[in-house]
Amino acid sequence: MTPSAAQLDEFRAVIGAGHVLTAPDDLAPYLREDRGRWRGAAGAVLRPADTDEAARLVAICAAGRIPLVPQGGNTGLVGGGMAEGGVVISTGRMSRIRALDALNATITVEAGATLLSVQEAARGAGLLFPLSLASEGSCQIGGNLATNAGGTAVLRYGTMRDLTLGIEAVMPDGRVMDLLGGLRKDNTGYALRDLLIGSEGTLGLITAATLRLFPAPAQRATAFIAAPGPHEALALFDLMRNRCGESLSAFEYLERFGLQIVLDHLPGARDPLAEPSPSYVLAELTSPDPESDLSARFEAALAEAFERGLITDAAIGASEAQGAALWQLREAMSEMQKHVGASIKHDVAVPVSRVADFITEAVSACRAHMPGLRPCPFGHFGDGNIHFNLTRPEVMEDAEFLDHYPAFNRIVHDIVASMGGSISAEHGIGQAKRGELLRYKDPVALDLFRAVKAAIDPQGIMNPGKLIPPA
Amino acid sequence: MTPSAAQLDEFRAVIGAGHVLTAPDDLAPYLREDRGRWRGAAGAVLRPADTDEAARLVAICAAGRIPLVPQGGNTGLVGGGMAEGGVVISTGRMSRIRALDALNATITVEAGATLLSVQEAARGAGLLFPLSLASEGSCQIGGNLATNAGGTAVLRYGTMRDLTLGIEAVMPDGRVMDLLGGLRKDNTGYALRDLLIGSEGTLGLITAATLRLFPAPAQRATAFIAAPGPHEALALFDLMRNRCGESLSAFEYLERFGLQIVLDHLPGARDPLAEPSPSYVLAELTSPDPESDLSARFEAALAEAFERGLITDAAIGASEAQGAALWQLREAMSEMQKHVGASIKHDVAVPVSRVADFITEAVSACRAHMPGLRPCPFGHFGDGNIHFNLTRPEVMEDAEFLDHYPAFNRIVHDIVASMGGSISAEHGIGQAKRGELLRYKDPVALDLFRAVKAAIDPQGIMNPGKLIPPA
Repeated sequence: MTPSAAQLDEFRAVIGAGHVLTAPDDLAPYLREDRGRWRGAAGAVLRPADTDEAARLVAICAAGRIPLVPQGGNTGLVGGGMAEGGVVISTGRMSRIRALDALNATITVEAGATLLSVQEAARGAGLLFPLSLASEGSCQIGGNLATNAGGTAVLRYGTMRDLTLGIEAVMPDGRVMDLLGGLRKDNTGYALRDLLIGSEGTLGLITAATLRLFPAPAQRATAFIAAPGPHEALALFDLMRNRCGESLSAFEYLERFGLQIVLDHLPGARDPLAEPSPSYVLAELTSPDPESDLSARFEAALAEAFERGLITDAAIGASEAQGAALWQLREAMSEMQKHVGASIKHDVAVPVSRVADFITEAVSACRAHMPGLRPCPFGHFGDGNIHFNLTRPEVMEDAEFLDHYPAFNRIVHDIVASMGGSISAEHGIGQAKRGELLRYKDPVALDLFRAVKAAIDPQGIMNPGKLIPPA
Repeated sequence: MTPSAAQLDEFRAVIGAGHVLTAPDDLAPYLREDRGRWRGAAGAVLRPADTDEAARLVAICAAGRIPLVPQGGNTGLVGGGMAEGGVVISTGRMSRIRALDALNATITVEAGATLLSVQEAARGAGLLFPLSLASEGSCQIGGNLATNAGGTAVLRYGTMRDLTLGIEAVMPDGRVMDLLGGLRKDNTGYALRDLLIGSEGTLGLITAATLRLFPAPAQRATAFIAAPGPHEALALFDLMRNRCGESLSAFEYLERFGLQIVLDHLPGARDPLAEPSPSYVLAELTSPDPESDLSARFEAALAEAFERGLITDAAIGASEAQGAALWQLREAMSEMQKHVGASIKHDVAVPVSRVADFITEAVSACRAHMPGLRPCPFGHFGDGNIHFNLTRPEVMEDAEFLDHYPAFNRIVHDIVASMGGSISAEHGIGQAKRGELLRYKDPVALDLFRAVKAAIDPQGIMNPGKLIPPA
């Protein structure tokens, strides 16, 4: 449903005509997503300046039953922010840091603040906001909350849900629910905060949050490690977790094919190790204690791993710059894949104990389906979260390869399900995975999704067509 | 509503006559709670052996609209497990450890397993399940989940919600929702797990859970520290958090009056310090790394605190036995308070940055209300969670003192609210705080509580009269 001229005037009365976008060129950036898999359609994009304006806009939508899609930095990968009519409410102008309480180790920020701006505000106070993603320069806190964002620091610090103490949200009737506040313990009723986090804009428009901060690392050590395969990488993970405890702040995995893509296409990239290896681990230790000798700790753990045959070589980044160069090899992976042809992607998780089995079985099953396929599994091994990407055979058209998307989904997701895993570890459901959710999610849970949605958004105006599978 | 004779027979057909308790003497232990503030009433206590039996019992209740109260170890403090008619479903026989996956660092247990049995199972695998409470020998995992239990290890490891990866629950229609599984990342829809955790049995009967385990501490150091007052204790907390990071695993607070009660009444207790002090901190460092020298770290941090005037003395427990003796001084507090007359208790949280202000202001306001009052604030200072207990004046009858319960609640909770705090940090709402919740909780959130409750339990049979305030 498209807003009427009268409704557009109502919006303009709240936020000013300049922030009610209706011209096609102005709408365009809000209606396309990076990979071009979905296109949106909307009668207007609304850009409120603060929570009060946002609430008044939602109230107008509620009165007129106008569907609305909350949108942050529009960096999502599952079509969750693409409107299918109605309006987009873009949070970009709601970007204030409202408060930073160093002693409580919390920061209260508005939904439109970029993740990077929050990281920088924390750093300015000598603290750390640990969430870290490839898109951190443009993604916004509201989107991070709506999708329960993950990334490379989950191993130590948890997902966005774990990092959030309070939220403020405009509910589908236009009322503001104020659950802000920096409390570590609060058992006063249902966890509405956690219900809204990860709800992908289908239950309300999150407008602000109080987030946890941590002591800034005073020491950091990064290592790029060669392992014979995923099972050895898993044994290394177990060893390092037991030796290093919470100091172990990242444990990322990649394989030779993925590294080679980066070496071939990323300007200035060079192999940190002398010999190629089937598998690699990027591991990081950090400590807030300036006295701790992380390099020595790393070397001791790696020496034990070497003796046990779990690793064949390792390079420890001795400086921040060297560490950053090692990280770049991992972070560039997704972007560099574009240079070698179409990819079919899966964002899955299994219990950590099964992650090596998963990689082995899924690679084997996919190769059996398509000889010449080039698997490129990588990601957050220590969380059991693998971005199980498949690059087309060298000699095959992209389009022909992409016709196999559903078949590969079935192969990979069936293996994931057999291991008690998740078909969406961190990217969410959006439009992309509603059908898969219907297939793999507990049916009682699906019924409850629908019941909760109907209870909180009885008119169904909040981001319709997302997350909840068609019945 | 009391089950009919025919319905009792239906229950007996599912779980056997011996597990359908109806004799008053058999029911009695399930219908009283420790402090005698509430009494329950029920037509039967049902003791299923497993999830399937529990589901069939709930289905009978659903068909007959019989109210049911899930009950674990019956150690709650807010009357949340006291039935008001209908039946009690006691989880005590559902106590199996279903699986322990050391590599994934998870354990899957049934609701009736005691917290202690889970701690011991983890320890047997060389791992740690960190939740720790005074009642851990008798409280059950299901109750810990239903109340989102806290305790002394929240500072480092979080609350029960943070420690839980998956749950299994019987929903109010008798269907089983299976969200078990040991995944660190799973963004497949609404956080029903988190919604059920902390819902106090009002949305479903939790029957099992997959919980996170951690590397067992290889090193532990405990110190009992004298501080001039709560503000100095707070500065000490900030110093220790910055020096010790995640090694800081407990930071508990007490005052001289509380310590004196324990010294006077706990057999064998002795003051670890030479001179009395207004305030005390019990702090603990742990590390999974056997090489780390925690005592040296402790001593360095305490030396700095001493120089800055934050502390006046400290005793470091050099052995496990000495550490345990220090812990006993803190843990016995609640029990020993009974020896000095009636208490009025508050379980509150404020931002950590306000915890010293809170203690100072609340003590002053309560003393102004009643000269001779003996405040006994203690608890989880590092979480901002204070058990703000008030002991009656030496010369006053218990009954006269307890008449002031509502007045003290108002004084203390108003101060808490003015600081953005919580009137129930870890004990929950139950029957005890429904009225207070109505006063202090965001009204939009209260409406959503009712909407969610009606959506998931439309007949209102799950633990009626608890958590949700009367409209």
